[in-house]
Amino acid sequence: MDDVTFAVLGTGGIGRRTLDVAQHKEGLTAVAACDRNGVAIDRDVLESRRDSSGSSGARSASDGGLDVAELLDATEGNIASGPEEASGSTPATPTDDYASDGGAAAVEGGGVSDGVKQAGEDAGIVASAQGEPTDSPIDDVIAESDGIDAVLIALPNLEHDFIPRVAERFADADYEGVLVDVLKRSRVIGMLDDREETLEKSGITFVCGAGATPGFLTGAAALAAQSFVEVEEVEIWWGVGLKSGYEDNRGTVREDIAHLDGYDIETAREMSETEIEALIDEHDGRLEFHDMEHADDVLLERAGVCDAEDVTVGGVLDVRQDEKPTTTTVSVTGTTFDGERGTNTFQLDDATSMEANVNGPALGYLKAAVRRNEAGDYGVYGAAEIMPGF
Amino acid sequence: MDDVTFAVLGTGGIGRRTLDVAQHKEGLTAVAACDRNGVAIDRDVLESRRDSSGSSGARSASDGGLDVAELLDATEGNIASGPEEASGSTPATPTDDYASDGGAAAVEGGGVSDGVKQAGEDAGIVASAQGEPTDSPIDDVIAESDGIDAVLIALPNLEHDFIPRVAERFADADYEGVLVDVLKRSRVIGMLDDREETLEKSGITFVCGAGATPGFLTGAAALAAQSFVEVEEVEIWWGVGLKSGYEDNRGTVREDIAHLDGYDIETAREMSETEIEALIDEHDGRLEFHDMEHADDVLLERAGVCDAEDVTVGGVLDVRQDEKPTTTTVSVTGTTFDGERGTNTFQLDDATSMEANVNGPALGYLKAAVRRNEAGDYGVYGAAEIMPGF
Repeated sequence: MDDVTFAVLGTGGIGRRTLDVAQHKEGLTAVAACDRNGVAIDRDVLESRRDSSGSSGARSASDGGLDVAELLDATEGNIASGPEEASGSTPATPTDDYASDGGAAAVEGGGVSDGVKQAGEDAGIVASAQGEPTDSPIDDVIAESDGIDAVLIALPNLEHDFIPRVAERFADADYEGVLVDVLKRSRVIGMLDDREETLEKSGITFVCGAGATPGFLTGAAALAAQSFVEVEEVEIWWGVGLKSGYEDNRGTVREDIAHLDGYDIETAREMSETEIEALIDEHDGRLEFHDMEHADDVLLERAGVCDAEDVTVGGVLDVRQDEKPTTTTVSVTGTTFDGERGTNTFQLDDATSMEANVNGPALGYLKAAVRRNEAGDYGVYGAAEIMPGF
Repeated sequence: MDDVTFAVLGTGGIGRRTLDVAQHKEGLTAVAACDRNGVAIDRDVLESRRDSSGSSGARSASDGGLDVAELLDATEGNIASGPEEASGSTPATPTDDYASDGGAAAVEGGGVSDGVKQAGEDAGIVASAQGEPTDSPIDDVIAESDGIDAVLIALPNLEHDFIPRVAERFADADYEGVLVDVLKRSRVIGMLDDREETLEKSGITFVCGAGATPGFLTGAAALAAQSFVEVEEVEIWWGVGLKSGYEDNRGTVREDIAHLDGYDIETAREMSETEIEALIDEHDGRLEFHDMEHADDVLLERAGVCDAEDVTVGGVLDVRQDEKPTTTTVSVTGTTFDGERGTNTFQLDDATSMEANVNGPALGYLKAAVRRNEAGDYGVYGAAEIMPGF
């Protein structure tokens, strides 16, 4: 496989780490990134790929690509926020929600004239030497997408249909390539399925739920199930210690809060930062989750591993320590063809961070999806379907 | 994906269990099987698939297929053996070596007139109501192969190049489909690579090493590696209790013996059954293996997970108990992008048998390969490459 060029939509924790981890992986070249207020695009590499399309002796993308180190430095602790956030301490929409309906409209709708700050806190990508301010970051990436093999969508999805709608916009532009998301919610899969025909027609291979869970751990469950002819139960239990990563992952924490008893997506979305802090204080920094609506269930059912209802996801998030409060474990219980019952397990070392376990697999699924896409395999796939498909 | 039709070459332990496990899996129809002396082929299903090729409204293969229960009953404890075995107690070639050079020549070369026994011990497939005696079982399957989506090669490979040569024969017949093997030895991969162009031209997707190890555990290692940007060590450690399965797996045990200190493939191949029993007695039924030449190393290197030399395979085989003498564990040690060192682990429940762990994954890889083949993805792949390809 030739070098894969990829873009990242969103430079919050996941987006930025993806750029970072990709530097350690072979055959991946970051060519574009965007946030609420800006884009960074290596137009030279994209131009040269277009010029040489069809000829396999083309200039390799590895000759170029974004200066990731510079971009990361510029955006570290400096996530672009919308005008609402900039103008007050209790925002109507949370910090990194430019993905959500209101935020996206603010970014892409053209109705905002004061949003872009060129430097300092909240500037985001435009604080980078490679950054260009724009009112339409996602559209700007789409405009260059014919040189991009794959796009990782690292946008928070507080509006369920936002990521599906982003996919649709790529399809409207006849994008031929891979879209990967790291979404969590089961119901989003169906929304993507509704758009499958549109995506197929465009030549898009969409892989959903390709982070840690769903993603890494879903794949592990699909694999661990291979001893069995009947899977009875899949239990995914995760531990995350997020002290030093807390600032970068506020969006993820907010999404997690929506899984707590008494909360839902709407209430979590409307909480102020102060309210979130109060909630976290109340729990001494440690939130425990049970029966989370995580797409692992739907993805495993799609992959033919078991029924969605036989999958449970839970875990413990501690935002006041970096050590994991519990060991991340996937347990798959089933019956073998010769009638024995057993439980296979997959465990992640406590030393491996959530970030490592999201971003490595996300890029892995991305590369796998590029191969599928090149083979003409279009449509919507869950992470576990990209597995051997036992 | 439509129903997958598949054939099994070899009805020793692995071949027979594959037929058995496939009954529990969705979308798999066994249409052919062969052993040294005979074939069982559902010509009706194959005929109807050829008649309807191109029309997706075809009669489903699930309407037919071999009567697996009858075939298994007929071959249980009744493995076809060659004329040498039938004529004396110390065979020149071991019981189930029709796969090896001499055996294959005897089966397929046409020089043998007395070999086929129609019933009773050692008759094999011809003892089944579906069995037909033949001097050229593999050629007979090849002759029908245009209705067969995938072929699992469950032949012992005491001659290293036997399976590669079987693949070549399918290519010579312009077979378009999947070949899967469960071979163990690292060096066979290179022999398959030498034939890659021939296989590609024919339209063959060959997946090698798709059993338990290599196969299931190699895939687990590739997955577990996803937390890391640098993998330092992969340790595969297996336990097998083979008391009740011993008779069916003599070929496998013989292959394992070749991994013991002081033994190699040639010496293992030339041992009589009596000598093997004596060796097993000497070890009280429990053989411990270290630094085995298992293809996991080459397969993980091919998949870009780590260097072959960083992979170690070992384990304990106990032929006098069914309980596993040690827990099968895959340990992957590496460093994360954020500089942490850790070990992720994958463990199989002791209750899952070797047979369950070979045949489930083998069929899983087979199905995955059919999808690749249908997408026009031809050539030689290791099991770990069929994984997401992180």
